[in-house]
Amino acid sequence: MSEQRTEISELGEFGLIDYLTKNNETQQASTILSVGDDAAILDNFGKQTVVSTDLLVEGVHFDLMYTPLKHLGYKAVAVNLSDICAMMATPTQITIGLAISNRFSVEALEDFYEGVYAACERYNVDLVGGDTTSSTKGFIISITAIGEVTPNKFVTRSGAKVNDLICVSGDLGGAYLGLQLLEREKRIYMENKGVQPDLQNQNYLIGRILKPEPRVDIVNWLSEQNIMPTSMIDISDGLSSEILHICKQSGVGAVIHENKIPVSEEAKSLGMQFNIPTITCALSGGEDYELLFTIDQNDYDKVVNSENISVIGYIAEASEGVHLITPSGNKHAIIAQGWNTFNKK
Amino acid sequence: MSEQRTEISELGEFGLIDYLTKNNETQQASTILSVGDDAAILDNFGKQTVVSTDLLVEGVHFDLMYTPLKHLGYKAVAVNLSDICAMMATPTQITIGLAISNRFSVEALEDFYEGVYAACERYNVDLVGGDTTSSTKGFIISITAIGEVTPNKFVTRSGAKVNDLICVSGDLGGAYLGLQLLEREKRIYMENKGVQPDLQNQNYLIGRILKPEPRVDIVNWLSEQNIMPTSMIDISDGLSSEILHICKQSGVGAVIHENKIPVSEEAKSLGMQFNIPTITCALSGGEDYELLFTIDQNDYDKVVNSENISVIGYIAEASEGVHLITPSGNKHAIIAQGWNTFNKK
Repeated sequence: MSEQRTEISELGEFGLIDYLTKNNETQQASTILSVGDDAAILDNFGKQTVVSTDLLVEGVHFDLMYTPLKHLGYKAVAVNLSDICAMMATPTQITIGLAISNRFSVEALEDFYEGVYAACERYNVDLVGGDTTSSTKGFIISITAIGEVTPNKFVTRSGAKVNDLICVSGDLGGAYLGLQLLEREKRIYMENKGVQPDLQNQNYLIGRILKPEPRVDIVNWLSEQNIMPTSMIDISDGLSSEILHICKQSGVGAVIHENKIPVSEEAKSLGMQFNIPTITCALSGGEDYELLFTIDQNDYDKVVNSENISVIGYIAEASEGVHLITPSGNKHAIIAQGWNTFNKK
Repeated sequence: MSEQRTEISELGEFGLIDYLTKNNETQQASTILSVGDDAAILDNFGKQTVVSTDLLVEGVHFDLMYTPLKHLGYKAVAVNLSDICAMMATPTQITIGLAISNRFSVEALEDFYEGVYAACERYNVDLVGGDTTSSTKGFIISITAIGEVTPNKFVTRSGAKVNDLICVSGDLGGAYLGLQLLEREKRIYMENKGVQPDLQNQNYLIGRILKPEPRVDIVNWLSEQNIMPTSMIDISDGLSSEILHICKQSGVGAVIHENKIPVSEEAKSLGMQFNIPTITCALSGGEDYELLFTIDQNDYDKVVNSENISVIGYIAEASEGVHLITPSGNKHAIIAQGWNTFNKK
């Protein structure tokens, strides 16, 4: 962060928006008109439009004590693009609404926007509109992500069929362990301000919580392989919560094998150190932003050799419920234990 | 508002969303998939998509002391649809993000959504997605409005040409006077809690601030008359601020005649009572959500007899600046004095 401090009131609302978007370049052919008017105009070239909105609130969804603003900007975009991916669609544009208290300077906002632009560039997405206003308290981010999909080739949560295979991308539980690490260092710092954080060799897990990546690569790979998942959701609240959404909306049950759930070596090691079972992190931790999806059994051969996809179970009759089989063969009902922001305080 | 109080935590996030959207019916043929998945899917039928986002923060944009939640829901939708209208486009869908502290009950949210649905129904718009989360303080509303427009038939702020006529819909200044009325009654109430508000015969001005209407009718009428405005903006910050936006983005100047600016009888009467010149309310009050637009002189005959449109001036060379001519013939430079939320406190 630069050391200068410019008050937001020095620029005014319109000056601020001009300043923050002065280098905004659009890359998508579908972006006809971007920031600077009452609304943005997008062309569709015969595709369908995909839209998703998220709201992130300081003190509820993030802690600025250990979240650099640049990372926050990147993550705010990434988690929204993840929703577009979860429809098997391609993200193309975003709009951003920001409410900020005057505790933040123009330079702080620039850091935030640097992260926003980094994510936009990485994923070839245009920032096409927004609204910047003051808040009475804290930092509030609203992002709407827009994407495109070939007509009727989107994937919902409701199409899973009995005997479909349940797949997950990447590995799970890492974001939750990264968060525990940051929370521990925050406690230590609060108790003794001289102590420097000990985050050596934990780049992977810290990255999982601070800089998640939407799995655009998985969506593209599935398309290339002509695999049309029968259902799909992104993992924001934890595997338990997400498989329950798919089962409820598809009217089916599921069986998941604990020892098939992908967990990184880093997560295993830190889970041991913190005495938290990694299975708990994977099921209930959330924020991994991997894709959970179901495929027809006939597609098994296509995914079995992918390093980025794990087959973790299968879809069962609704009457069989949703269960986890432990390595020792025990069967546990899966219940949602994900985030519930209204119960947190 | 119903008298029951159900805590939001009793329903949980997903239960709350299900509850609030259980009667949500879509009307637009373009709405392929609505609330309940990672994102919504919209068809475009060869049209271009129009997108706009706004953020409304309690204590900055509204005061719940005199804003019934139902009206707030209606207004939050209306002001976003107004942005779509300002592109000469037709609003079709919205998404809503809400952050709420646990001071609000499920019943309070139901009132808010009742207003949202009333606006959606009135303007034939579908609610297709959203996010509901907790806030550490207050009520925060983020709305993204989506619309459609025939390819390249949208109107920006940047097309005004020298000698174009400047037009405005409806009347101006009423919302600001309505707000003064509510603020006065709030002060009286705070000083003496027994006193009932005296809002007799002020329905029109109170309605202007609490229940603005997007001018979809004006957009439709202009289309029917084959009038393609050269530039357009909606009046959220006041006539001064908006004409300056058009002039800056079009690279032109403007002359506006004070006695041509439409002001309602109700506004004149209350302005007199409050000793506030109605011209000040029209220029700097804001929140009227009327449309300000420019047309070619050849279209004059088409608008001159419209009761809903006033021709208030003309576009001049940039070098001539932006001026107001008073009834006595004096010339004043127009400068922006609209809302600046960052200077307010």
